[in-house]
Amino acid sequence: VTSVLHSEINEQPDAIKRAIAGAKQATLALVAEAKRRDVKYIVLAARGTSDNAATYGRYLFEIVCGIPVGLAAPSVHTLYEAKISYRDALVIGVSQSGAGEDINEVIGQARKAGALTLAITNTESSVLAQTAEHVLLCHAGVERAVAATKTYTTTLALFALLASLWSESGELQTHLERVPEAMEQVLTASQNTVPVVARTLIHAERMLTVARGLHYATAIESALKIAETTYTATQPFSSADLLHGPIASVAVRTPCLLFVPNGKTAPMMNEVGDKLSARGARVIRLSSDGTDSLDYLPLVPPGTELLSPLVDIVPAQLLAYHLCLARGLDPDNPRGLTKVTVTR
Amino acid sequence: VTSVLHSEINEQPDAIKRAIAGAKQATLALVAEAKRRDVKYIVLAARGTSDNAATYGRYLFEIVCGIPVGLAAPSVHTLYEAKISYRDALVIGVSQSGAGEDINEVIGQARKAGALTLAITNTESSVLAQTAEHVLLCHAGVERAVAATKTYTTTLALFALLASLWSESGELQTHLERVPEAMEQVLTASQNTVPVVARTLIHAERMLTVARGLHYATAIESALKIAETTYTATQPFSSADLLHGPIASVAVRTPCLLFVPNGKTAPMMNEVGDKLSARGARVIRLSSDGTDSLDYLPLVPPGTELLSPLVDIVPAQLLAYHLCLARGLDPDNPRGLTKVTVTR
Repeated sequence: VTSVLHSEINEQPDAIKRAIAGAKQATLALVAEAKRRDVKYIVLAARGTSDNAATYGRYLFEIVCGIPVGLAAPSVHTLYEAKISYRDALVIGVSQSGAGEDINEVIGQARKAGALTLAITNTESSVLAQTAEHVLLCHAGVERAVAATKTYTTTLALFALLASLWSESGELQTHLERVPEAMEQVLTASQNTVPVVARTLIHAERMLTVARGLHYATAIESALKIAETTYTATQPFSSADLLHGPIASVAVRTPCLLFVPNGKTAPMMNEVGDKLSARGARVIRLSSDGTDSLDYLPLVPPGTELLSPLVDIVPAQLLAYHLCLARGLDPDNPRGLTKVTVTR
Repeated sequence: VTSVLHSEINEQPDAIKRAIAGAKQATLALVAEAKRRDVKYIVLAARGTSDNAATYGRYLFEIVCGIPVGLAAPSVHTLYEAKISYRDALVIGVSQSGAGEDINEVIGQARKAGALTLAITNTESSVLAQTAEHVLLCHAGVERAVAATKTYTTTLALFALLASLWSESGELQTHLERVPEAMEQVLTASQNTVPVVARTLIHAERMLTVARGLHYATAIESALKIAETTYTATQPFSSADLLHGPIASVAVRTPCLLFVPNGKTAPMMNEVGDKLSARGARVIRLSSDGTDSLDYLPLVPPGTELLSPLVDIVPAQLLAYHLCLARGLDPDNPRGLTKVTVTR
């Protein structure tokens, strides 16, 4: 197999090593300035896969740093031309290409409004990198597949690096350095399991992905990856929201990918799994303790729940890839998509 | 027909009148204190339908008041026990029942952390109302249907009232007072059109709802209403996100409810409609200028795009109701749901 998507999925452990090492000095400089300027809250501006990464960032910064985080609605700036008073804020634009006009506009306006601004991007020469005061680079190498993988996980790694230096948590940093190893392990563990489960999904027209809390990012990124490469209508849910109404609409045999990593969310996720099973849905659990079956995919815990999303997305990326192959689709050229989506 | 859901949908114009009149003094007091304390940003905490309402609030406050707004992730508090430094924030808990433990915990913690706190609720005696310093009541009367309708639109009305008094926009206030009239008109215009379109959806197993910007709240609330009452798997999209990948997964004949109110989003919504049509999807446009057909539902513009979401949700509520009837389901007792969902 010479698929670009598959190669890039496998490059992720090395890419993460480069991201952590390459961005450390720039991160320290940003943290020093944020503390000097007494930043009171953080705003993240992103679209698509980068927006899913930002969802991880918001949970992580709030949990680890105790600082409030919001996700920007770019259209407030681009469509409604609002002038938002970003006093005392750190505003972070996230985009692998750095070419999205809407995100660049948010960062440009925030900088004018006096906010501290940061670009997280894989493209050093991008407009985004030139617009923000500070830049953290993903160091992922050029991403050729239309479906983003290594720019997603390296962005998560940069968020984790930033949170660990901001909170001065040596423990989180140590765990972060071990993430590439856990990722290698999950790649190995997925080799035989994922293709078998993927084949059982050939006729699935609809899927659900479900996670909670810090892991919600994994649910929304999995859903996007599966939808855009395999054309399966895939809807992500936080388990709390699912129980607030939409569970009534889950039909018999609907495949539900449940992310059940070790940690705070596991008890509720197992409860949701039981409720979905009782409704006749097909529950496929991703967990580090399960028994080999068609309804199970292995996870590898990276030492702390806080970093689990960096590793847990890998089996879902591979599931999207192998479902493509099983359906005879081209994983590198999803229909109707281009690498850079420009929205205003 | 003596359905509670249908009665409550029809009660909305009167409920909004009561909300605007009943909450004015309390809103003025809150605004005065927010300005005295120099609030720098707003955080909204909510679940389910109230969270959809909060999505409208975030756009409205940013556009009209120029103040940054974020949506809280309650699990950061309840699962991860984060202590967030809400200095200089206004933190708003939104819940019709005021009984959700997670929202109450967010408000309790925010108040302890020194934030200005506000409850928006339909239940004066609730824990939420007792936990926050300030309270705005929906004045919607008891809501008996499991699917929330009048507590949703009255919550939007309270957000609009707050934004108009905060920004001292007499124009917005004047338009707000005319919303009940536009709502009466859309109820009348829907009477013959909605049941006919609903019948064409009897065999739809999946639907999309699509809107953009300020109107995204209408897409997510419509999707929730349709999913929880008719059991149709209904996925909401911002049109920008839809183009970022998931459009590849939209199958031939999938019904797509497109909200195309007058205003800034109309050109892009029409473009998205054309792209969906080109893929073979069935596009049902909600708009104030269209011609009678099975793929069109009438909207009534309330004088300003900013208040359109208060009126535009009504045909979608009625569509959920009439699709229930067409399928022989009981709109008042959706399976597997209870009125108050408690999540921690």
